[in-house]
Amino acid sequence: MKRVVVVGAGFGGLSAVNGLAGKGLDVLLVDRQNFHLFQPLLYQVATAALDQGAIAYPVRGLLKRNPGLRFRMTEVTGVDLDHRQLLTAGGPIDYDYLVLAAGTVTNFFGIETVRRHAYDLKHLADAVALRSHILRAFENAVQESDPAARAAWMTFVIVGGGPTGVEFAGALAELVHRVLIRDFPDLPLDRTRILLVEASPHLLAPFPPALQQYARTRLERLGVEVKLGAAVTDAEPDHVVLKDGTIVPARTLLWAAGVHAAPLAGAVPGPKARGGRVPVQPDLGLAGHPDVFVVGDMGYLEWKGAPLPQVSPVAIQQGAHAARVILARERGEAATPFSYWDKGMMATIGRGAAVGRVFGVSFTGFLAWLAWLGLHLFYLVGFRNRLLALVDWAADYLRFGWGVRLITREERESAGLAAPSATAPLAPAPVAGSTTSPAPPTAPAARTP
Amino acid sequence: MKRVVVVGAGFGGLSAVNGLAGKGLDVLLVDRQNFHLFQPLLYQVATAALDQGAIAYPVRGLLKRNPGLRFRMTEVTGVDLDHRQLLTAGGPIDYDYLVLAAGTVTNFFGIETVRRHAYDLKHLADAVALRSHILRAFENAVQESDPAARAAWMTFVIVGGGPTGVEFAGALAELVHRVLIRDFPDLPLDRTRILLVEASPHLLAPFPPALQQYARTRLERLGVEVKLGAAVTDAEPDHVVLKDGTIVPARTLLWAAGVHAAPLAGAVPGPKARGGRVPVQPDLGLAGHPDVFVVGDMGYLEWKGAPLPQVSPVAIQQGAHAARVILARERGEAATPFSYWDKGMMATIGRGAAVGRVFGVSFTGFLAWLAWLGLHLFYLVGFRNRLLALVDWAADYLRFGWGVRLITREERESAGLAAPSATAPLAPAPVAGSTTSPAPPTAPAARTP
Repeated sequence: MKRVVVVGAGFGGLSAVNGLAGKGLDVLLVDRQNFHLFQPLLYQVATAALDQGAIAYPVRGLLKRNPGLRFRMTEVTGVDLDHRQLLTAGGPIDYDYLVLAAGTVTNFFGIETVRRHAYDLKHLADAVALRSHILRAFENAVQESDPAARAAWMTFVIVGGGPTGVEFAGALAELVHRVLIRDFPDLPLDRTRILLVEASPHLLAPFPPALQQYARTRLERLGVEVKLGAAVTDAEPDHVVLKDGTIVPARTLLWAAGVHAAPLAGAVPGPKARGGRVPVQPDLGLAGHPDVFVVGDMGYLEWKGAPLPQVSPVAIQQGAHAARVILARERGEAATPFSYWDKGMMATIGRGAAVGRVFGVSFTGFLAWLAWLGLHLFYLVGFRNRLLALVDWAADYLRFGWGVRLITREERESAGLAAPSATAPLAPAPVAGSTTSPAPPTAPAARTP
Repeated sequence: MKRVVVVGAGFGGLSAVNGLAGKGLDVLLVDRQNFHLFQPLLYQVATAALDQGAIAYPVRGLLKRNPGLRFRMTEVTGVDLDHRQLLTAGGPIDYDYLVLAAGTVTNFFGIETVRRHAYDLKHLADAVALRSHILRAFENAVQESDPAARAAWMTFVIVGGGPTGVEFAGALAELVHRVLIRDFPDLPLDRTRILLVEASPHLLAPFPPALQQYARTRLERLGVEVKLGAAVTDAEPDHVVLKDGTIVPARTLLWAAGVHAAPLAGAVPGPKARGGRVPVQPDLGLAGHPDVFVVGDMGYLEWKGAPLPQVSPVAIQQGAHAARVILARERGEAATPFSYWDKGMMATIGRGAAVGRVFGVSFTGFLAWLAWLGLHLFYLVGFRNRLLALVDWAADYLRFGWGVRLITREERESAGLAAPSATAPLAPAPVAGSTTSPAPPTAPAARTP
């Protein structure tokens, strides 16, 4: 029996595995995590709107309906194309066909200080760490007596005006102004600064100008400062430096400015496209290695004169196509070229507003948001996740009560950790019932281990 | 306005804060976490039955209905009784009344190797780490070619036959035999060993003998080996040593054999009771310091000739009592002694079975389990948590599909981490559809960072 090894349990890899199941092949899925992550909703975990279990699903739970599929949890270290072996931390694995769907990593564009101090949103742990950091920032702000230091805890810089940056900025603004404002009556939460920094002149680059403008207006109405044509060039734990030299005191930096193909792409010989992506043939095979396929964000293919976008619909369709090509070849038939069915794109800006572009028609507002909600619920894998997400969202929508405001994880050692410097004795308590009294000028808390 | 400082957002501390709210006092709650943890269900998080968000609730969400209450997230380092100051990492905090409700820590009875290699269940992070470790143990077992090494990954030793040990053992057995058995068709899961080790001759010490026997029978029917009159004296990452010299190869050790009062108890002068508990006066005040109260597991008081048990009903009632004493004193009235209303006790053994003892009447079986379920749902704080727990449980009960099988956290650095030693090339795949084929003797996976 021929063996197909699929690397990556993301949208592309799972789609390939589904297409190969039950077809008389030995299919082995390899990932370093034991769960599929619904990455488009990571920002909701980071803003305490969804629990992590709602967007992650155990791979074995997805595979078990099909005993022909196997899973191995291990780290992939390389590929030996000549010997047809996938190299892993657990030893080499022979393959007859190989599907690489390892996705991307965050691209910090070589800015080492940013890499060290910024948060990013690629893994589940990133989102949990960022959530803990955001909530702890406000806990620290309450206990900070120096106004400048407190302002830095209450300033959040987001770099990248793509869907991740826009959706995160909107969700963070709502968390602060509609939820935390009741959690922290002693804190002037209206002075929270959320800066969205984008290098190009537009938010949501692939959308039509009218939708870009709508997104910007909605974000500004939520209290987000949108800075276009700006960039972050340097970062320290307590401030961020913009390209024009402006120093923004801020304890939180989210980097959503770009991605780079996963390091595994480097193990594939030949020149790479922009962002380290692996160029593939029209059938998604590797030039000179027709038994190796690259699907999803990691691969590079042009379609109607432009590179295919790095979005989940492309990955899902490519995974399915790679499976079809493998099955066709096993039947002795010729491979067909990949063709992309563009179903459109959507982004949400806070609760009750979204932008969408489907079959050339633009949508905005509440109906677009409802469509976005329905679509994401539909795609969330598994009954339980769908139900849990629905419960969370329903509760949130009805009463603005984010329930997952848990600081469950120490912050990243490198990110925004320096304790505030001022120390002052505890002041007399404000009069009970007075919610407008200033925060007591208390000593800063050291982080608890 | 007089200030009451309450240390600990557990059952005792929250109960005290609730009793003090809205009574014209400045009430400050201090905890190093920003959430209340429903500790009795921690074992369900550790066995992937409940998501962590279902048993943790943000403290500020609980307090915000009452603007007279304040919260500070910081680490308490000591108490200065003479100057009436609570010492914290964020500086000293003056108090007029102090309520200490810091709970307990795990007591490893000075066995350093056990402390280093065992898991325990006190904090939310412990449960998440243990869940990740258990699931990773099976992922490692799949890839382990040496039968002895694989057996060690599939052996789980639980020390302590109290409610935590019994409930965890039952839930683990169900996770393995009803859920993972479908996730790991290549693994002989019926050879999984779950050992419950208890030093005394009985499980569930305070229960009547008939209920103890019932619990033991139920556990054994679930596949748990119950070892009474036995103890663990030593541990290494790959084995556990029993008092009689038996060496049990096992990669997982859960220590639920006892607790010790939180280190803060050491900051209170005077002799301590067994387990480091702080002896209190009948009104829960500290001898010589009537403005300081100790409530819950951290305090020691005898009731009807025996020490009060370290359970949540005692903590809840004591917190409320301390609040009443403080309010009485403010009105110039005398303090009343604490009196305990024993509502009984319960423990669950897997799905559909429990033991209960209420007002002298014993309950076992499915109805006891239903009562346990209802009681815990009722006590879970907050609408969202109740609903989420209900959804999880309903889904589990209907289809044995634990959904939270996520390895989201690297295991504790010290616990059971050594990689398996054997290495072998990947064997030919079993025939598709054959679920009885032995696990392929593959190379072990190194842990992924």
